[in-house]
Amino acid sequence: MESTNLIKALEWRYATKRMNGQEIEEKKLNTILEAIRLAPSSLGFTPYTVIVIKDKSLKEKLLPHSYNQPQIVESDAVIVFAAWTDFNEAQVDKYMSEIAEKRNVAVETLSGFAGNIKGKINNSSKEDLLIWAEKQVYIALGFGLAAAAVEGVDSTPMEGFIPSGVDEVLGLKEKGLTSVCLLALGFRDEEKDFLSKAAKVRRSHKELFSHI
Amino acid sequence: MESTNLIKALEWRYATKRMNGQEIEEKKLNTILEAIRLAPSSLGFTPYTVIVIKDKSLKEKLLPHSYNQPQIVESDAVIVFAAWTDFNEAQVDKYMSEIAEKRNVAVETLSGFAGNIKGKINNSSKEDLLIWAEKQVYIALGFGLAAAAVEGVDSTPMEGFIPSGVDEVLGLKEKGLTSVCLLALGFRDEEKDFLSKAAKVRRSHKELFSHI
Repeated sequence: MESTNLIKALEWRYATKRMNGQEIEEKKLNTILEAIRLAPSSLGFTPYTVIVIKDKSLKEKLLPHSYNQPQIVESDAVIVFAAWTDFNEAQVDKYMSEIAEKRNVAVETLSGFAGNIKGKINNSSKEDLLIWAEKQVYIALGFGLAAAAVEGVDSTPMEGFIPSGVDEVLGLKEKGLTSVCLLALGFRDEEKDFLSKAAKVRRSHKELFSHI
Repeated sequence: MESTNLIKALEWRYATKRMNGQEIEEKKLNTILEAIRLAPSSLGFTPYTVIVIKDKSLKEKLLPHSYNQPQIVESDAVIVFAAWTDFNEAQVDKYMSEIAEKRNVAVETLSGFAGNIKGKINNSSKEDLLIWAEKQVYIALGFGLAAAAVEGVDSTPMEGFIPSGVDEVLGLKEKGLTSVCLLALGFRDEEKDFLSKAAKVRRSHKELFSHI
């Protein structure tokens, strides 16, 4: 892959405020989801779930909890990244079984690694574990944003919503989940979106980086 | 760009534990940094700084604060993502000047947007602002990881270090910064790294996603 093309794609993307309702080809959407699935996370533990919403009536229900931002209903899909709110050793054991199966090793050989994760879970507060989980979500969000750009699909990463409202609409609380950020995916409406022709604003290399 | 190539690159990458010290071509490193620079952040505020360390003696000094993980010194570059710990209205005004200049608009037209960000800064606790800044860092980390993979450069995202130690080595505290995560960049040592041939473990599509 020409990496200059990745940079071009990242320059092309912007937080799209108005979309045109056009559907995303299934293959493209699946590629974006696959990039999200491949995102790394701390200890590989992936303490989150990803909900892909294409249902129009459900998106309408999310609208008031998203300060009525039109991309919620003008997008083709709204991705809800939801972090785990409850942690327990059974989750670690399940993860160890997955590693053992994938790598064809005995689960006993993973006991040290399992102990590390269990130690973290047992010795951290619920609040700290949630913050830790939320951070991992943002790596996956980054992978989703980059993949969407490469696919020529517009995207809007969104923190501007009311988590308790979104959680209630989706019944997340009873599943031990809470919404962390949204990602609207679709296609820009160039005429309606005042940002579609605006220059990208980023700190300059010199301002953002220091080299030692 | 062929998006299947992005997926292939993301499948190829893994958290590299042993590297061979080989230098990264300057062009490749610059592409990775440019992807990091292009990462979006909440409100576009980019409340972090990125330190690129190639200096060998400085990397040696970071080693004890990174639990002696060899990729710190075996990598070519260690990227330190450091979040702002202090927030003030002057930062917002500076950002508004940057937008005004880039987009060739009067800074007065941005007063509503400026007010939103100042409101957030003035009405959030220092702790909450730091957590918010740290999350934005993880998007940039995601962009850096994806770009490195596309460039064929190995990478290790690292939370396993002692922030206070790294902060002291780099003098971050007095600059109003704190280290959030590290990204070692270099090339895998296939023989020494037990993970170099291990199958990637990720939750399956069915387990990670729900579709509505």
